[in-house]
Amino acid sequence: MKHIYHDDSFTLHTDLYQINMAETYWRDGIHNKRAVFDLYFRKLPFGNGYAVFAGLEKVIQFIQNFRFSEEDLEYLKNEVGYQDDFLDYLKDLRFTGTIRAMREGELVFGNEPMLRVDAPLAEAQLIETALLNIVNYQTLIATKAARIKQVVGDEPAAEFGTRRAQEMDAAIWGTRAAYLGGFESTSNVRAGKLFGIPVSGTHAHSMVQAYKDEYTAFRKYAEAHKDCVFLVDTYDTLRLGVPNAIKVAKELGDKINFIGIRLDSGDLAYLSKEARKMLDEAGFKEAKIFASSDLDEYTIINLKAQGARINSWGIGTKLITAYDQAALGAVYKIVAIENEAGQMEDTIKISSNPEKVTTPGLKRIYRIINNKNHHAEGDYIAMENEKLPEKRLSMFHPTHTYINKVVTNFTAKELHEDIFVNGELVYEIPCLEESREYVKQNLNALWEEYKRIMNPEDYPVDLSKKCWDNKMHNIEEVKEKVAAMKE
Amino acid sequence: MKHIYHDDSFTLHTDLYQINMAETYWRDGIHNKRAVFDLYFRKLPFGNGYAVFAGLEKVIQFIQNFRFSEEDLEYLKNEVGYQDDFLDYLKDLRFTGTIRAMREGELVFGNEPMLRVDAPLAEAQLIETALLNIVNYQTLIATKAARIKQVVGDEPAAEFGTRRAQEMDAAIWGTRAAYLGGFESTSNVRAGKLFGIPVSGTHAHSMVQAYKDEYTAFRKYAEAHKDCVFLVDTYDTLRLGVPNAIKVAKELGDKINFIGIRLDSGDLAYLSKEARKMLDEAGFKEAKIFASSDLDEYTIINLKAQGARINSWGIGTKLITAYDQAALGAVYKIVAIENEAGQMEDTIKISSNPEKVTTPGLKRIYRIINNKNHHAEGDYIAMENEKLPEKRLSMFHPTHTYINKVVTNFTAKELHEDIFVNGELVYEIPCLEESREYVKQNLNALWEEYKRIMNPEDYPVDLSKKCWDNKMHNIEEVKEKVAAMKE
Repeated sequence: MKHIYHDDSFTLHTDLYQINMAETYWRDGIHNKRAVFDLYFRKLPFGNGYAVFAGLEKVIQFIQNFRFSEEDLEYLKNEVGYQDDFLDYLKDLRFTGTIRAMREGELVFGNEPMLRVDAPLAEAQLIETALLNIVNYQTLIATKAARIKQVVGDEPAAEFGTRRAQEMDAAIWGTRAAYLGGFESTSNVRAGKLFGIPVSGTHAHSMVQAYKDEYTAFRKYAEAHKDCVFLVDTYDTLRLGVPNAIKVAKELGDKINFIGIRLDSGDLAYLSKEARKMLDEAGFKEAKIFASSDLDEYTIINLKAQGARINSWGIGTKLITAYDQAALGAVYKIVAIENEAGQMEDTIKISSNPEKVTTPGLKRIYRIINNKNHHAEGDYIAMENEKLPEKRLSMFHPTHTYINKVVTNFTAKELHEDIFVNGELVYEIPCLEESREYVKQNLNALWEEYKRIMNPEDYPVDLSKKCWDNKMHNIEEVKEKVAAMKE
Repeated sequence: MKHIYHDDSFTLHTDLYQINMAETYWRDGIHNKRAVFDLYFRKLPFGNGYAVFAGLEKVIQFIQNFRFSEEDLEYLKNEVGYQDDFLDYLKDLRFTGTIRAMREGELVFGNEPMLRVDAPLAEAQLIETALLNIVNYQTLIATKAARIKQVVGDEPAAEFGTRRAQEMDAAIWGTRAAYLGGFESTSNVRAGKLFGIPVSGTHAHSMVQAYKDEYTAFRKYAEAHKDCVFLVDTYDTLRLGVPNAIKVAKELGDKINFIGIRLDSGDLAYLSKEARKMLDEAGFKEAKIFASSDLDEYTIINLKAQGARINSWGIGTKLITAYDQAALGAVYKIVAIENEAGQMEDTIKISSNPEKVTTPGLKRIYRIINNKNHHAEGDYIAMENEKLPEKRLSMFHPTHTYINKVVTNFTAKELHEDIFVNGELVYEIPCLEESREYVKQNLNALWEEYKRIMNPEDYPVDLSKKCWDNKMHNIEEVKEKVAAMKE
């Protein structure tokens, strides 16, 4: 084995071009120019009406441990070919910038920054890739989980996806995101240890096969564990599995806590209804029916529509991989940079696709909450130093400007908090339980229209007049450049 | 921050039910019964005609480090509630079994074991989840990469997906799998360090924005780096980007190595053709055109069909997340277990879905290679102790048995090698370059019909008569049980 897997640093978890750009800036002497980058996605995933921001805890850990190890530097020198002077600069590099971000569990929408990095140019560049890698995945899964949990309702939902997750980190950080998004438990024991998430699970088909028959397997399980959920589909659900579960439950009576049975294949609607009858007839009216088997929000909604008698849901593949949209496309775009005179100047990226044009400048993000019903009227992006009107706020759509409204009697809640200030961590991250509770509160305060699984209303993310004018002005400037080049 | 992320062990990277089953076996005294599990998938991903096995290197590391840490045991005791006697057993537990597997880079098909675990029952159970997590993802990505690389052909393909990968492990192990599958490089520097994969990348839009215009940005980049690929779509590809790249390349002449330009948005077919003309007219006939922008095998095949003038491909999201099928459904099924008399007995799992019925018993997997043309006639699964005929092999489809053929003049190549024997690692894993070369050889030796991107022929994975008879016999036994229960 030539390349043993070991990590003395995660700092090289970046794209090579970031280091090449950092070198360009360093050789040009502009690496410490102050630069501001916004991290945001353009489009909500899964056709959902909202997303749930996640990833901040790991971002903080990444930033706190940001330093090139001796091994990193040796690799960069010997294998990539960077020169010693630049490597000396990297050697002592720490993150010295300021990061503002939403708190984990905040509801977030398209085209509004979840996180903003305000840092020396080279530093801001070097951390980009890892930040996107972390936030993209964790936000994706927290959102998927919230969406599934909405369909599940008050019944328990367990994350069961480790075996199908995209490698180990996805399994544990994905289940953390799922818990944040509203799931009740995970099957992954390591995630339980690391994050304090409740763990759940009883036995698999292999145990039934090891004992050759369900009767013996269930009895043996019951001898070792008080709480019993028997998996009944190894050979024949209704003819062997359920009758054997009932037989063992009857025989053992109060000696065990017969929680119920689990169905893992076949027609779950039919099987659950039949199994319910059998359990009821045997006097186990309180016994629960657990179901798993490639479930997602669509299969669950259908099972419920068909009157399936399922009480508890195990969700694997479709959640942990966000199967129907396996990536969130968050980007990290430079919006301002210090000029020669030491002042901040806006930057813009133009695209023939209007959605891809960036919104320049330092900005603040507000949630405009109606004081009467405590629901949000939309989000409002203003310039950093802009004072918001206190009484009467005019909001308009940043692309289709004829869509507009005037809001009165509102509270403007700022969505970003300081996380790092000049390299110092100034934020105390809430514990996971607290953030999970925050998601619930947020979802309760969101109008139902934005929470529909299919075709939700578009939640307004509007620009202030000043912010919009500034963007238009920046676009004009580029157009003039293009015109000048053609002449 | 209550739960700091740290790992002193990966042993809890398992589903809770595995530990509950291990406890059941241990309390019943059957935890050391010899048990055999096959790890395989049923259906090839992406509608592809083959898959590329990957993940063995990490599986080996996981097994070698398999031991519950003090912290693991404390967690299991205090938070999950296991009792001391069982925890004492776990404390000293090491993997003492035997693992046979295909080598990384082997082509693999549906319903044939990639890996087989032959170990004390409880041990085999406890490692299941991690093995599936690793093999499922890495095999999925190696397969996707081979599939994309096939469409790309001899042009270089670079893996660029870290920012969209499903967390950090996916980024690095995914790019390792992509390299194994035929990609030439990665943007992920950490993967370069860990696995010796060539790294590639130059600069992003942010550098152009930091310098406000392309001319300055390209010049500054060129002052710091001899090899230059200029990204030309920050403001306007054909009006600003390409002319500025040409201008800088002309001005600097031999001082730089002007490799070419990169297109990252817009109509890549049109832009590449126009850019090609501009480069050629400027005398840069050797300059290459790099393209990236949500590419996959379908967009690449279409771009080529439209005559796009692209020389080098950067593939991100669609590769690293296997976007169109984000999970491989490999399973780990018990096929035999020691009985009271100390002999191995077969086990089977029945399903109303015929594909889900397992194939019982200890088996060996052979690739039947035609001695004349050195292409494979198919794979052949025989019982462990079965002697293969030397001259005349009758092969038939395990479901549609009327599909059959007789093969003569063949070599039967066994596909499994010993990896661990009684807990000892006996296998020296080839270096990544060697395995990558092996994939190429394997693909060269595979009939074209199995390599088509769309609707490839089904590659035969047949059972020996003995193996098939044994399976039917096991199914009959279960049917008799069901019948007996009904009476």
